[in-house]
Amino acid sequence: MDIPAPEILKKPLEIPNKILMGAGPANVSPRVLHAISKPILGHMNQELFQIMDEIKEGIKYVFQTRNDLTLAISASGHAGMEAVMSNLLEPGDKVLIAVNGLWGVRASDMAGRYDAQVVKMTANMGSNFTLREIEYYLQTESPKLLFIVQGETSTGVYQPLEGIGSLCHRYNCLLAVDVVASVGAVEFLMDRWEIDVAYAGVQKALGAPPGLTIISFSPRAQKVIFERTTPIKVYYWDMKILGQQWNCYNNVRPYHHTTCSALLVGLRESLAIITEAGLKNWQQKHKEGYKQLKKGLEKLGFEFFVDDESKRLITVTSVVVKDFDWKELVKCAMNKHNVEIAGGLGPTAGKILRIGVMGYNANPYTIDYVLNALKDALNHSRTYKTAKL
Amino acid sequence: MDIPAPEILKKPLEIPNKILMGAGPANVSPRVLHAISKPILGHMNQELFQIMDEIKEGIKYVFQTRNDLTLAISASGHAGMEAVMSNLLEPGDKVLIAVNGLWGVRASDMAGRYDAQVVKMTANMGSNFTLREIEYYLQTESPKLLFIVQGETSTGVYQPLEGIGSLCHRYNCLLAVDVVASVGAVEFLMDRWEIDVAYAGVQKALGAPPGLTIISFSPRAQKVIFERTTPIKVYYWDMKILGQQWNCYNNVRPYHHTTCSALLVGLRESLAIITEAGLKNWQQKHKEGYKQLKKGLEKLGFEFFVDDESKRLITVTSVVVKDFDWKELVKCAMNKHNVEIAGGLGPTAGKILRIGVMGYNANPYTIDYVLNALKDALNHSRTYKTAKL
Repeated sequence: MDIPAPEILKKPLEIPNKILMGAGPANVSPRVLHAISKPILGHMNQELFQIMDEIKEGIKYVFQTRNDLTLAISASGHAGMEAVMSNLLEPGDKVLIAVNGLWGVRASDMAGRYDAQVVKMTANMGSNFTLREIEYYLQTESPKLLFIVQGETSTGVYQPLEGIGSLCHRYNCLLAVDVVASVGAVEFLMDRWEIDVAYAGVQKALGAPPGLTIISFSPRAQKVIFERTTPIKVYYWDMKILGQQWNCYNNVRPYHHTTCSALLVGLRESLAIITEAGLKNWQQKHKEGYKQLKKGLEKLGFEFFVDDESKRLITVTSVVVKDFDWKELVKCAMNKHNVEIAGGLGPTAGKILRIGVMGYNANPYTIDYVLNALKDALNHSRTYKTAKL
Repeated sequence: MDIPAPEILKKPLEIPNKILMGAGPANVSPRVLHAISKPILGHMNQELFQIMDEIKEGIKYVFQTRNDLTLAISASGHAGMEAVMSNLLEPGDKVLIAVNGLWGVRASDMAGRYDAQVVKMTANMGSNFTLREIEYYLQTESPKLLFIVQGETSTGVYQPLEGIGSLCHRYNCLLAVDVVASVGAVEFLMDRWEIDVAYAGVQKALGAPPGLTIISFSPRAQKVIFERTTPIKVYYWDMKILGQQWNCYNNVRPYHHTTCSALLVGLRESLAIITEAGLKNWQQKHKEGYKQLKKGLEKLGFEFFVDDESKRLITVTSVVVKDFDWKELVKCAMNKHNVEIAGGLGPTAGKILRIGVMGYNANPYTIDYVLNALKDALNHSRTYKTAKL
């Protein structure tokens, strides 16, 4: 053998128990962790098909939709974004992308890779888009698709969605919404708001481990996919065939790829937990968590990055970096208190801190613990900054 | 709320304990199942970066390579195939694909989606390719890339790889190999055999849960990726940026996507188990498992689909469907004995049965149990067929 057995793999595995209060993943409940440790099922086993059917019902519930083409992709949240672009856009198609943070930038990059004509509609970091602004772009640009983010985690901004769908349809445009960091925590009414495609990571407010993306297409979007004149580039997220494996079109379930039963079982349990609690109560728990965190942060003297509270995303609260060293704060929270807090991301790197309240962590005891850790870390990082001056 | 809470999610979760002896996934060891139920880690946590580094060493060991660009993609095995095509091929590039079963067909489909010029080199189902045949195609077609499968699970055929790499390089062609169902169980010497890219699912001989694909690119392949004149279509498996997150190029680890710590921890443990056993012993255990299965199948009167034993893939043994009803056999094995046996796939559907011996299941007790189940299921399915006549 040319390559010897790596010594590093002979050490025992050690996994610390962290409190994940960044922009996701969040911790998952012991019930979900227990579920994913159950025996593996084959991807063609009837029992796994049953679990997939249950997941579909769960997605329809949290998305509030009746769409047939509803399923989970075996990949992380970025895959959802890429599935939107590669399924709905053909080379030369015009896509309008709302950019007020990293996710609009990322979506623009992806749409460009699939040879779409990308038009960016921008707003200031920390702000969102009005119906009037959106209508102006729909009118002047006539795009095939509008992409917008309900919860922009890189800034902590919330985007109201009501009215955008009907506006888009008046201008013969499809509406795609990223609800990765918002669904489950804030109201989202896919059908009533006439949204054509929405996708979400499952490791945030939904309380599942990362690794899957849930996605749903309206009949209008499904029609666009089936009427394409060019093939979908990516086999892995080709909804024409992936939708068959998920039994979205008829009752055949041909093999498309090997799904991961452990992750599917975990998602099934996290959706069951929300079902048992009731979606409204699940959202309420996030709202209360946000209020508790906000109050605590105010008391500690933090300044909110999103001034206008109506524009704040309740799952990710962003605060301005000012009289403290942000790296030291993050390091102290992690090393001394096992609490993960996120710095900025992309355009906000170095400018803000982001504190997430999601899923299992949206409870008063955890938030209280985190606020105490933040108090200590803030003191430490202020002292550190003063000493450096 | 328009969509009420789904009643189906209020039932308790029930996961049966099956013995997965199809073409994968196989069962995973309790140690791996225990590991994946540990607390979730954030994708930017140092502890997870450490686990990713350990996984890289483990992949280098099982692939027998020193390649820097070695990592795991957060998606199932098909993603490995698609990553090969989308990273190494540009529109118009010629790719030679060895087709002797489903995987060559699938690879041709994917390469076509990325606008490559696809040339197929075919062999009979149940057979493989000689160096002479390969050289003829390299000489007459001058492809940029040759794609070939070491373990063709749809037929149970093994492809010897020694000599193909140097042959390809003599004709200025890259060599891509699918080792999804073979690595860990049969000899695979990536560097010595001059292979430019190889990928594998982890849910087969490596003993991890499905959901990740491991992949490695030679410096020659890496150079081709970095010298592309057109962008890589797919963000999710763009090795230029994914390789950064896996620390393959330098010491920055920018955020590319949210990895799944549970699956990474599971893969780490499965690689640790192989490291502790020793790769040679791990392969030997598969060889012995195959021999035991073969002897038992012969005793039961099964006829092997791959006549020439030197062409048989030891992880997936295929037998001919003849004097029994194959659907009844599969159903009886599953319903009465909890044993999953696979039917044919794609071109072999209805013609063969496939029995896998992989990873945790490659042990004498499991194989003995499965042979007993097969005996009963065969009797049942013979009686069923006779009664139908």
